Amino acid sequence: MTATDSIGLVKPEKIPFGPLLLQNGQTLPRFDLMVETYGTPNADKSNAVLICHALSGDHHVAGRHSPEDKHPGWWDNMVGPGKPVDTSRFFVIGVNNLGGCAGSTGPLSTNPENGREYGADFPVVTVKDWVNSQAMLADRFGIGQWAAVVGGSLGGMQALQWAIDYPDRVRHALVIASATRLSAQNIAFNDVARQAIITDPDFHDGHYRRFGTIPRRGLRIARMMGHITYLAEEGLGEKFGRSLHDGIRYGYGVEFEIESYLRYQGEKFAGRFDANTYLRMTKALDYFSPAAAFGNDLTAALRQTQAGFFVASFTTDWRFAPARSRALVKHLVRAQRPVQYIEVESGHGHDAFLMDDPPYIAAVRAYMDNVYKELQQ
Amino acid sequence: MTATDSIGLVKPEKIPFGPLLLQNGQTLPRFDLMVETYGTPNADKSNAVLICHALSGDHHVAGRHSPEDKHPGWWDNMVGPGKPVDTSRFFVIGVNNLGGCAGSTGPLSTNPENGREYGADFPVVTVKDWVNSQAMLADRFGIGQWAAVVGGSLGGMQALQWAIDYPDRVRHALVIASATRLSAQNIAFNDVARQAIITDPDFHDGHYRRFGTIPRRGLRIARMMGHITYLAEEGLGEKFGRSLHDGIRYGYGVEFEIESYLRYQGEKFAGRFDANTYLRMTKALDYFSPAAAFGNDLTAALRQTQAGFFVASFTTDWRFAPARSRALVKHLVRAQRPVQYIEVESGHGHDAFLMDDPPYIAAVRAYMDNVYKELQQ
Repeated sequence: MTATDSIGLVKPEKIPFGPLLLQNGQTLPRFDLMVETYGTPNADKSNAVLICHALSGDHHVAGRHSPEDKHPGWWDNMVGPGKPVDTSRFFVIGVNNLGGCAGSTGPLSTNPENGREYGADFPVVTVKDWVNSQAMLADRFGIGQWAAVVGGSLGGMQALQWAIDYPDRVRHALVIASATRLSAQNIAFNDVARQAIITDPDFHDGHYRRFGTIPRRGLRIARMMGHITYLAEEGLGEKFGRSLHDGIRYGYGVEFEIESYLRYQGEKFAGRFDANTYLRMTKALDYFSPAAAFGNDLTAALRQTQAGFFVASFTTDWRFAPARSRALVKHLVRAQRPVQYIEVESGHGHDAFLMDDPPYIAAVRAYMDNVYKELQQ
Repeated sequence: MTATDSIGLVKPEKIPFGPLLLQNGQTLPRFDLMVETYGTPNADKSNAVLICHALSGDHHVAGRHSPEDKHPGWWDNMVGPGKPVDTSRFFVIGVNNLGGCAGSTGPLSTNPENGREYGADFPVVTVKDWVNSQAMLADRFGIGQWAAVVGGSLGGMQALQWAIDYPDRVRHALVIASATRLSAQNIAFNDVARQAIITDPDFHDGHYRRFGTIPRRGLRIARMMGHITYLAEEGLGEKFGRSLHDGIRYGYGVEFEIESYLRYQGEKFAGRFDANTYLRMTKALDYFSPAAAFGNDLTAALRQTQAGFFVASFTTDWRFAPARSRALVKHLVRAQRPVQYIEVESGHGHDAFLMDDPPYIAAVRAYMDNVYKELQQ
């Protein structure tokens, strides 16, 4: 097998759990988590790696669901046999987060209390809630301690929260293109996205499916705007510049290539993603506050951790800029935690964490090689 | 009079013109421009200064319309007796651009061809069109050459276009917080704003007023998003940070102060600004291409100019970042044009051009002092 091989065909499974007390005070009597696993657990299950997804991701991290499947999982370049997260060494779990729309219990699921779809009634969930549900998942698999918890963006926040909330269950946390909390600008963009969805007349207070519709316009606008913030200005400039799609027509159809690209992204997303889930994901971002239980003293929160940390940022990421990762590193150093930090030169903005920038891929590979070596000792 | 005095009470006037051949090939048989003037023209009208407005501005640059008027004109801190653009020295004209919604002919005006409101039928206008209409305005006032054409953002683009299209009619061009053309990211944000408006069910293909409605939701979203891009991340952080408005409620009402602020801005704007005008203003930005007539060679375009240039940018402006102004300066230097450039340390982002950052105000004052001295010679 070479480094470019994919894990091949994979199959998701749905695992039932419950109950779970949520941070907002509500209790979910029961819930399902949709997961995929790759590789084989060793005898003591010390080679388990959890992959946490970002805003629009899910459990389908690597491989394909059928031979005809056009697109592999969202991190297929990172996870697989011979890949940086090497499935011939590690037992890797991908999970769709609670509140998601890819099979785990969320707004599209049936509310056991009334037999109707949750829709707007599904509670607002937090990063802490996800980590707690993932801990139940670890228990189910008999995993006492993760060799690593890995995530980018909102996924990196889960890795960080894991290390703080379950210090003895995380050997390594890989926190990539992430931040220790959202800035006012981050929250502002999220709120505009939410407002676009909520004020769409097809939103119907979140019970749009009861009306046989979806707030497509709002989702489309939210995604178009989000997409701009995931990409670097310089990368956009190189890719699209001011190229015209079909010439200037002094009208409001597609004129520039960038417009064509963004509208396509918006359409595609609106067709596949649930609006109530989108709202919840953005709220989980806004609320993320890993040091809340430590009087907002992040150094104190990190002093409790027992993990080694890998932190990566990307030069043109303006959503979670390198300065945000450096702030985390500073707190880790103060807390005397082992940390390896890489700031990757990239023109891909925030989305770089999903891409094949060689120094980045090499850095994750080297780190995970060492995680594996530790296991052999 | 001290430097803090306002011009006091001012009165707009509407001036009829026509016809005008537009860049899109259409001809406006007649049109009005709404203007305000401050100060007194000298004998040869060589002391005239034109103030060009940005996306949401208008002719009301300085002073108040009544003693009860709560807010002065949008650049009252820059224009007035003893101010950097000193109305005791200069005869200053503010003009609402064609296609605007503050009194000049635009989508809210009556189409002389059918006696109905233009609405969506009002043509798409460009920066070149504005400059041509402003040249007709100069003719009407008997102004052969402006002592200065001054503008920020989209206003700066007009100043630049003036210097290129009417070289002998512009003695000085002040191009502030502007750019020589929009980046893919700039166009992308504009297109999301337009899509928010156009996909609002109350848009009715731009003829919303015939339906007794306005696309309020779309305008609101467009303005909220726009507003984020006018402000600096660091400024937002200092002003709002993660402050809570009323505490976390695990819902979608206002939770963070920044949400309250943005929603208020969006509401206010949707109540006062016409959506068809907004669409046209953003298109004028997208199309701006001052070197188009020179094979996109900006140096060649600038070689035709006869003006002196003042260029200013602001360190935290990420909409039109300092690099964009430096690019203009580079072309001006190549074209051997006199140029004075200031890069202002400011935490106010793009909106800094409207604010009182002392080094900026001082630089404009010094430049305009020299413009005045020239007139005395």
